[in-house]
Amino acid sequence: MAAESVPFDLGESGNPRVTTGPISGSRKVHVSTPSGLRVPQRRVTLTNGEHLDLYDTSGPYTDSEATVDVRRGLEPLRTTWITDREATGGGTQLSLARSGVVTPEMEFAAVREGVPPELVRDEVAAGRAVIPANRRHPESEPMVIGRRFLVKVNANIGNSAVTSSIEEEVEKMVWATRWGAHTIMDLSTGRRIHETREWILRNSPVPVGTVPIYQALEKVGGDPARLSWPVYRDTVLEQAEQGVDYMTVHAGVLLRYVPLAAHRVTGIVSRGGSIMAAWCLAHHEESFLYTHFEELCEIFREYDITFSLGDGLRPGSIADANDEAQFAELRTLGELTHVARRHDVQVMVEGPGHVPMHLIEENVRLEEELCGEAPFYTLGPLATDIAPAYDHITSAIGAAMIARAGTAMLCYVTPKEHLGLPDRDDVKTGVVAYRIAAHAADLAKGHPRARERDDALSRARFEFRWVDQFHLALDPDTARAFHDQTLPAEPAKTA
Amino acid sequence: MAAESVPFDLGESGNPRVTTGPISGSRKVHVSTPSGLRVPQRRVTLTNGEHLDLYDTSGPYTDSEATVDVRRGLEPLRTTWITDREATGGGTQLSLARSGVVTPEMEFAAVREGVPPELVRDEVAAGRAVIPANRRHPESEPMVIGRRFLVKVNANIGNSAVTSSIEEEVEKMVWATRWGAHTIMDLSTGRRIHETREWILRNSPVPVGTVPIYQALEKVGGDPARLSWPVYRDTVLEQAEQGVDYMTVHAGVLLRYVPLAAHRVTGIVSRGGSIMAAWCLAHHEESFLYTHFEELCEIFREYDITFSLGDGLRPGSIADANDEAQFAELRTLGELTHVARRHDVQVMVEGPGHVPMHLIEENVRLEEELCGEAPFYTLGPLATDIAPAYDHITSAIGAAMIARAGTAMLCYVTPKEHLGLPDRDDVKTGVVAYRIAAHAADLAKGHPRARERDDALSRARFEFRWVDQFHLALDPDTARAFHDQTLPAEPAKTA
Repeated sequence: MAAESVPFDLGESGNPRVTTGPISGSRKVHVSTPSGLRVPQRRVTLTNGEHLDLYDTSGPYTDSEATVDVRRGLEPLRTTWITDREATGGGTQLSLARSGVVTPEMEFAAVREGVPPELVRDEVAAGRAVIPANRRHPESEPMVIGRRFLVKVNANIGNSAVTSSIEEEVEKMVWATRWGAHTIMDLSTGRRIHETREWILRNSPVPVGTVPIYQALEKVGGDPARLSWPVYRDTVLEQAEQGVDYMTVHAGVLLRYVPLAAHRVTGIVSRGGSIMAAWCLAHHEESFLYTHFEELCEIFREYDITFSLGDGLRPGSIADANDEAQFAELRTLGELTHVARRHDVQVMVEGPGHVPMHLIEENVRLEEELCGEAPFYTLGPLATDIAPAYDHITSAIGAAMIARAGTAMLCYVTPKEHLGLPDRDDVKTGVVAYRIAAHAADLAKGHPRARERDDALSRARFEFRWVDQFHLALDPDTARAFHDQTLPAEPAKTA
Repeated sequence: MAAESVPFDLGESGNPRVTTGPISGSRKVHVSTPSGLRVPQRRVTLTNGEHLDLYDTSGPYTDSEATVDVRRGLEPLRTTWITDREATGGGTQLSLARSGVVTPEMEFAAVREGVPPELVRDEVAAGRAVIPANRRHPESEPMVIGRRFLVKVNANIGNSAVTSSIEEEVEKMVWATRWGAHTIMDLSTGRRIHETREWILRNSPVPVGTVPIYQALEKVGGDPARLSWPVYRDTVLEQAEQGVDYMTVHAGVLLRYVPLAAHRVTGIVSRGGSIMAAWCLAHHEESFLYTHFEELCEIFREYDITFSLGDGLRPGSIADANDEAQFAELRTLGELTHVARRHDVQVMVEGPGHVPMHLIEENVRLEEELCGEAPFYTLGPLATDIAPAYDHITSAIGAAMIARAGTAMLCYVTPKEHLGLPDRDDVKTGVVAYRIAAHAADLAKGHPRARERDDALSRARFEFRWVDQFHLALDPDTARAFHDQTLPAEPAKTA
């Protein structure tokens, strides 16, 4: 267990405090599978004697019977699965799926989805789904991302440069998954970036993604021109060894695409895209991420890391949506998807950004066509630019629509987007807004279990079972608080 | 001017205090038309010397050169238009449009939209647009509702029974229009319902809608069975005389449709629908709203009140969306639309409610087909039931989609929906969420002026003109506050 081998040192801040305890009205239950896996679910017990079991992203933190010790890290659920597999030749989820094997990860994910394990295997084999699960992150509870499954939500966390923030970032991870984030990305920068990530990984029950170019840039003093393949490769190896499950790689920002962004209203807004564009222009050479892509595939295969091919030229405004810069890069991401698959490496493809509603579907159609139906992982998109401070809403509109059209995972946007760094409340608001978008899409796509929760809550509403209505809500605490603000407390709730 | 003829008595609360003064970074300007109308716009002056003029819903309250005296009411902008028209035979906006007349109201509305007045006239003549403008509400600044024009937003206000709330309700009206509500509905109940409405009407720069059955029910002590056509008619006349611009009439809840709702998950959730269903069942007679509909048309024509045909059988949950009860009523609303038009009365048709994304478009298609393309006026719809306390978001998703499909006006939903009564902050949050949905649809529909604001804000963002970015935002104050929370103040904003 990596947690014990790493010399954690939080200095003055001591043992991080994280939020524990059940979500109001719920308790943790475990479903046992025929092969002996124990899959956690969140059970909402209703006042009429019924109950509803929900997909649970929150890990042991909401289990009143679990002991949480952030200094030790979570129990490494997958250790024996991994060692058993390595004893018989290893392989990635993709290579094993192609060989017809149902891995424990596939079985675990299938129970969470309420689908047969063979469906998970077949979708992974076809490249239409991914299971991000680095063999060095045994603590994570496996999950599947793909258009045939429940739409997933990622929450970005990570801070800039402040020592005391390790505790805050671990808590943000716990907090985001409490409210329903299926994966988190650690976008930390600054001095203690390695150590922050270590704490997050050892304590994260969900897959963790990163953008390695951010740390590589720290290593060269923040000057993109000083980046190089060896610096980047070593950074990837360091993060791979820690257990990062998926990595955003902006390998599609080619030298010849950079001028395409020159006449845009908002140029290049992706941080990774800007860094690589600056490198290409400084050296007048093709991107080292592109020229060394097969070497990267070898590393990713070794750890079973999933590519998240970054859209470095994504539009940063309605004006720039679906332009030639964006789609030129997408074609290259399609080419790289097929290269990675030849190496048995799983691939997601990232998408925009800022897109008006009428141009959203084209993004999904082209991504699927060009990238062999690799799971699409989109940021929003924001359906208008005119509402800073409400971009969780402008983007929840776009997110619901793009998810309905087939996007497999949505990267959340918080109310602070474009304005500042999200705090704990913003993280919760962003996660809830995106769980709404994801669930609205699950309903529209006809996911077999999606409507159970709507129907249970609507029945509770019709029968004035207020407490049940709160407990079935995405955010029971706020629903109850809003109710109590204007209506009498107990009598009304049980009437 | 009606304000002076009514004995206002606010008791202890005295002269209502309302919010006045320009929106941050904006000032009121007036565009003069060839025929001499002065149309208000909101001008945002940018730091780069440019400016952008925006549709302005906020009336004289944001005009630093206007004197606001709530006890006197607003200046009656339309008085001479109305008296001139009555001197030459009168008529409704619909009858005049059909005769080829461009009324001052049409001209005024056209300037706000940036379209030729003849387009407004032709759309009104065809019944595809309405101008709600009771001749007894001369204070209102005319606006047009129709699928060829900017998508509009309505905010519901109104309180239950508390005397001191008149002041609060007038302020809610001012506050809702400040943030962009194009119309408001006064849903007040209780003792001082007439007086509250009088204050709102005399001070409202936007059209005011009501649901007369609510007040009629107060008159019969809250017992639906004691309602009758005479009580209802007299209530309508009272409200007509005060100047209500459009009225929701649930005339499509027919006796034979009531059983269709019996097996629903959430039965009948519309308050007006429930009242009329109870009346029909108690008397086992056809709804008096249906049997006396032509008499109602005569009253509406006299004042040029616009029908908002209520969807009393709208679905209250995802489970009940697009069912036979809902669509049976819609067919009747279509029939009544054509009856009203024969009487030269303008008509909007109300729509759901709770609808999953994949069933939204069918609502628009059927409404247009059955109701002769009368403007559709929808509540949300909520795209999922699982997020009480966030229903401004669940419904902004549905609202953006239904508006893109052709809905002309959206009735806002606040975070307190299903839980309690909205306060001032909730009203603002609801209005902003709905302006986002409406604007996202305007962009997707290609409204000629919609993208100006997105592009101006995106250019400001790209050039780090922070102050311009705030001032162009739907909510400048919150955008600035969020920015100042995490980043240094002045230097960063002007960097």
